[in-house]
Amino acid sequence: MEKKENGLDVKQSGRVINGPTNPMVTPLLNDLYQFTMAYAYWKAGKQSERSVFDLYFRKNPFGGEYTIFAGLEECIKFLANFNLTDEEIDFVRDSLPGCEEAFCDYLRGLDCSDIEVYAISEGSVVFPKVPLLRIEGPVAVVQLLETPFLNLINYASLVATNAARHRFVAGKSKLLLEFGARRAQGPDGAISASKYCYLGGFDATSNVAAGRLFGIPLRGTHSHAFVSSFMSLDEIVDKVLRSSDGKSTCEDFICLVQTCLTRIQNSSSLQGIFSETNQSELAAFISYALAFPNSFLALVDTYDVMKSGIPNFCAVAVALNELGYKAVGIRLDSGDLAYLSAEVRKFFCAIERDLKVPDFGKMIITASNDLNEETVDALNKQGHEVDAFGIGTNLVTCYAQAALGCVFKLVEINNQPRIKLSEDVTKVSIPCKKRTYRLFGKEGYPLVDIMTGENEPPPKVGERLLCRHPFNESKRAYVVPQRVEELLKCYWRGNADEAREELEPLKELRNRCIKQLENMRPDHMRRLNPTPYKV
Amino acid sequence: MEKKENGLDVKQSGRVINGPTNPMVTPLLNDLYQFTMAYAYWKAGKQSERSVFDLYFRKNPFGGEYTIFAGLEECIKFLANFNLTDEEIDFVRDSLPGCEEAFCDYLRGLDCSDIEVYAISEGSVVFPKVPLLRIEGPVAVVQLLETPFLNLINYASLVATNAARHRFVAGKSKLLLEFGARRAQGPDGAISASKYCYLGGFDATSNVAAGRLFGIPLRGTHSHAFVSSFMSLDEIVDKVLRSSDGKSTCEDFICLVQTCLTRIQNSSSLQGIFSETNQSELAAFISYALAFPNSFLALVDTYDVMKSGIPNFCAVAVALNELGYKAVGIRLDSGDLAYLSAEVRKFFCAIERDLKVPDFGKMIITASNDLNEETVDALNKQGHEVDAFGIGTNLVTCYAQAALGCVFKLVEINNQPRIKLSEDVTKVSIPCKKRTYRLFGKEGYPLVDIMTGENEPPPKVGERLLCRHPFNESKRAYVVPQRVEELLKCYWRGNADEAREELEPLKELRNRCIKQLENMRPDHMRRLNPTPYKV
Repeated sequence: MEKKENGLDVKQSGRVINGPTNPMVTPLLNDLYQFTMAYAYWKAGKQSERSVFDLYFRKNPFGGEYTIFAGLEECIKFLANFNLTDEEIDFVRDSLPGCEEAFCDYLRGLDCSDIEVYAISEGSVVFPKVPLLRIEGPVAVVQLLETPFLNLINYASLVATNAARHRFVAGKSKLLLEFGARRAQGPDGAISASKYCYLGGFDATSNVAAGRLFGIPLRGTHSHAFVSSFMSLDEIVDKVLRSSDGKSTCEDFICLVQTCLTRIQNSSSLQGIFSETNQSELAAFISYALAFPNSFLALVDTYDVMKSGIPNFCAVAVALNELGYKAVGIRLDSGDLAYLSAEVRKFFCAIERDLKVPDFGKMIITASNDLNEETVDALNKQGHEVDAFGIGTNLVTCYAQAALGCVFKLVEINNQPRIKLSEDVTKVSIPCKKRTYRLFGKEGYPLVDIMTGENEPPPKVGERLLCRHPFNESKRAYVVPQRVEELLKCYWRGNADEAREELEPLKELRNRCIKQLENMRPDHMRRLNPTPYKV
Repeated sequence: MEKKENGLDVKQSGRVINGPTNPMVTPLLNDLYQFTMAYAYWKAGKQSERSVFDLYFRKNPFGGEYTIFAGLEECIKFLANFNLTDEEIDFVRDSLPGCEEAFCDYLRGLDCSDIEVYAISEGSVVFPKVPLLRIEGPVAVVQLLETPFLNLINYASLVATNAARHRFVAGKSKLLLEFGARRAQGPDGAISASKYCYLGGFDATSNVAAGRLFGIPLRGTHSHAFVSSFMSLDEIVDKVLRSSDGKSTCEDFICLVQTCLTRIQNSSSLQGIFSETNQSELAAFISYALAFPNSFLALVDTYDVMKSGIPNFCAVAVALNELGYKAVGIRLDSGDLAYLSAEVRKFFCAIERDLKVPDFGKMIITASNDLNEETVDALNKQGHEVDAFGIGTNLVTCYAQAALGCVFKLVEINNQPRIKLSEDVTKVSIPCKKRTYRLFGKEGYPLVDIMTGENEPPPKVGERLLCRHPFNESKRAYVVPQRVEELLKCYWRGNADEAREELEPLKELRNRCIKQLENMRPDHMRRLNPTPYKV
C-alpha cells in the first residue's frame, strides 16, 4: 500500500514505513544509561527477556483536565528505521568503559522486529496514568526506545494540548495562526510546533518548511522592516496595475490610491479623524498591493494605527476594489488590541457605508503581540473585533508549562509483574500488562477510562461495572457503559505481516482531536475531578 | 584550512564552511512573510538595496543581568550552505498568490555572497540592546535570514544562559550533568540543549548523540527499570570477575559481595542500621558491577535508600575494592536530597573508617530529581553532601523563562538610517549602522558597553568619555577606560577572501564563557543596574 500525503511518500505495509523522518532522530538520541543498561543486560544474559513497558504521564499540563496525545507517527517511523551504523556502534563502544567486542556484534544485529507497540490513536484526548503506549519486547531493545519515545511524545503532546486550549478559549469561529518559528526551541522545535499546533486545532502556520512537509496552510503578511524600508512614493517606479478581470489597466495606481485617500478623508463619518498619513508607509502598502493585489493584508502599526496605518490601508484597499480586487485585511501587532480592533471595525464599516464598498466592514482583523490563552480570554471579556489571532512564543515554547512529564516504566518482565515503589503514591507505577477501555454514557460523552488486567473480560455495553481508583480505596463508582472502546491498538508488530493500525494523515488526526474535544462533557474542559480508574 | 573536530569536518577558508549542519535548517525554515516581502521588494525593484539589520534582545532572561551569546556558528554555517532547491522554489511559488516566474529565477540565483555579518564572539557575556549581530546586504536576502537566525540564536543563548546560572549557583567545584534529552522540546532541542549547556559551563551530558557530534563528555548510570527487571540473585549466571590487575580471579563475586554485606552489617558504627536488603536490587547492582567494574555507579532509591540501596551499593563497592577496582558513587533520584546526601556521606565515612577502605568517604553522590536553580540554591542553604547534580527538564526547557525575545531590526537602508517607532520606548529601535565597544576598568572588570556611529572615532584607553543612555537623557556617566575591546567582528564577508574571524571549537567557546563570567564584577552576577550605553 502506498499513500501520497502532502508531498511525502508514506509507504506502509506490514513491514516498512518510509518517508522522511526527522534526521536528528537516530538511536544515538538516547541517554548513555540506556546503552550502559543494554550492555549490562547483555553481560547478564538477560537482553532478550520479554518485557512490557508503559508510557504515560502523571498530571495534565497547564492546570487543565485533559491532554492531546501526539507524536505516535514519529515513534513508529523511528521503529521502522531503527538501525545503528558501524560508526555509531564504534562510538558506543568507546563510550562504555570495558565494552566487549561481542556486544558490538549484538548491536549490529539489532532491529525492532521483536517489538510490539500498542497505542492510543494519535490526536485522542487522554488522561493521566492511562498508558499512551504499551511497548513489548526484548528488554535491552525496549530500553533503547525509552529516551527517543519520550522525546518524541513529550513535546508533541504538550504543544498539541496547548494549541487545543488556545482553540477552546478563542472559540470555533476564529482563525488561529501559529507564528512561532523564530522563538521555538531550535529548528525542529519550530517544525514540530507547527505540525502539532495544527493537529491541536490551529488553522495555519507562518512556517514555510512545515507547510511544505505537512501540507499545513500557510499565512503571513509583511513586517515592520518592510514598511521602514520605504522612504517616499517616488520610489515606486512601476505604477501600473491591471484590473482583476484583465480587461482594463490602471496606469497610475498611486494616483488612484491618493484619490481614494482623499475620498476617505472627506467622507461624512470620517471627516477630521485623521490628516496627513505617513507617506513611506503608504508607499510600502502600495508596493505590497502591487505585488499581491489578490491577497493584500497589511501590518498597520508601524507608525500610528488610527491616524496613518488604517487610512493608508483603506485607501489602498478601496483602490484595489475599484479594479475588482478584494483586500484581505490588516494585522495589529501592538497596543490595546480590544480597543483598536473595535475602532478599526468602526472605520471599516464607515467606509462600507459612506463609500459604498460592499463587505468592507467584514475585512479581517488579525491580532498578534505576545498573545496567549490568558490574553485571548481577557480580550474576550473586554469585547473585541479580532477575527484571527497570530500566536507565537507562548504557544510554541509552552510558556505556561514547558514540559509534560511522560515516563516509561517497566510493568512486567518474563510474565512477572514489576512495580516501581515510591514514598510518593502518585509516583508508584501500576504493574502488569493492561488493557484499557473508554466507557461512554447515554449522552455519548466519555464517562471513564478503565484499566484491566490483560486476561480479565472486557467491560460489556449495558452491564453494571464497579470502577475502583488504583490508589484510593474510597474512590469507586458504578458505571453502566452505553458504548465501550478499547484504547490501545496495535501500531507495530515487528516483522510480522499481521494486520495493524495504519498511520493516518495529519488532517485526520486533527479531525479526531477536534471531534473528541467537542464530545467531552463541557465541565471536563474547564475544571473537572480526575476521571477515576479501575485497575 | 581544515580542522577535524570531534568527528566533524569543519572546513574553513575565506569561502566555504562545511560540516554537518542541522538538516532541518533550510531557507524554508522561514516565516512566509519573509518570502512575500522578498517578492514585494523584487516587484518594486528594491531587492538589492543595501540594508543593515541589527539582531539584539531587549531584556536579560531569568530576571538576571547577563546573557550568554550562543548560536553564531550555526548561523554562519547556514550562510555558507544557503541554497534553495528547485523543489523548494516551486513550493514558494505555489505559496505566493500570483507569483511571477521571473521571481523564481531570482530565487534560483540567490546566495549569501553579498552578505556581511559582524558578530560578538560566541560564548561572550552580552547585554540588552547591544547588537549581537549586524547583518548587511541586499534587503531581500537579509530578510530571508531573519527567522532562521532568530531561531538559531534565541534558544541557544537562552539555554546557555540558563546553564551558566545553574553553574553559578552550584559553584565551581560541583559536577554538573545535563540529563534533558527525554524532556527537551524535540530531537534537536535535545541536541542543542546538550551543546549549549556545555558551552554555558556544564561538565557532561547523558545525550549520546550530542556526545558524538560535539565531543561533550558523557555520563550516565542505570534506571529504576534496570533494578526492577531483576528478581533474585539466582538470575546471575556468570559470577566470575577478574581482579583489576588481571592477576587473580574471583570465582563467585556474589559470594564476595554477600560477605562484604555481612561485614558492613556487623561493623561497629553501622550495626542495627539496616537488616534485610532488597535482593533483586542487590542482583541488579551485582550485574551492573560485573558489566562495569571500573565505573560502578548505582541508582540507590528504587526501594529504600538507607535500608537497602546504600548497604547494597556499599557491599558491591567494597567487594570491587577487594579486587582492586574503585566504584564511582551513587545517584539519588527522589526524597529529601539534603538529608539523604548527608546520611549517605556518614555511611560512606563509617565504611572508610570501620572497614578501612581508603577514600570510600569521598564516593561521588549525584542528585537528580527535578532540580533547578532554586532547588540547588535551597540545597546549598540547607547544607548537603551532593557532589554532582544531574539536571534535566528545568534546564533544557528553560522552565523559568521559555524564550529569549531576540529581534531583528532594520537600522539603515541605502545609507539612510531607519527606526521602528513605538509608544513603548523600550521597543524603539536604535537607528544607524553602529560600532560597539566594551570598556574595561582598572580592576579588569568590564565597565560598560557603548555604541557609536560607524564613523565616530573609537574610544581611547585613558581618555575620559561621556556615555549617554540612548533613551534617558538623565542617565549619563564619565568613564576612563583602561582597555577597549571592539565587540562586533566580521564572521562572514560574502565570497570575498578577505580575513575574517574563524569559528572556534566548542571547548574554546565554553572557556570564553567561563572566563568572562569569572571576570564580571560580582554584583553584576546577582542584581545590577543595567549598564548604560552611549549611542
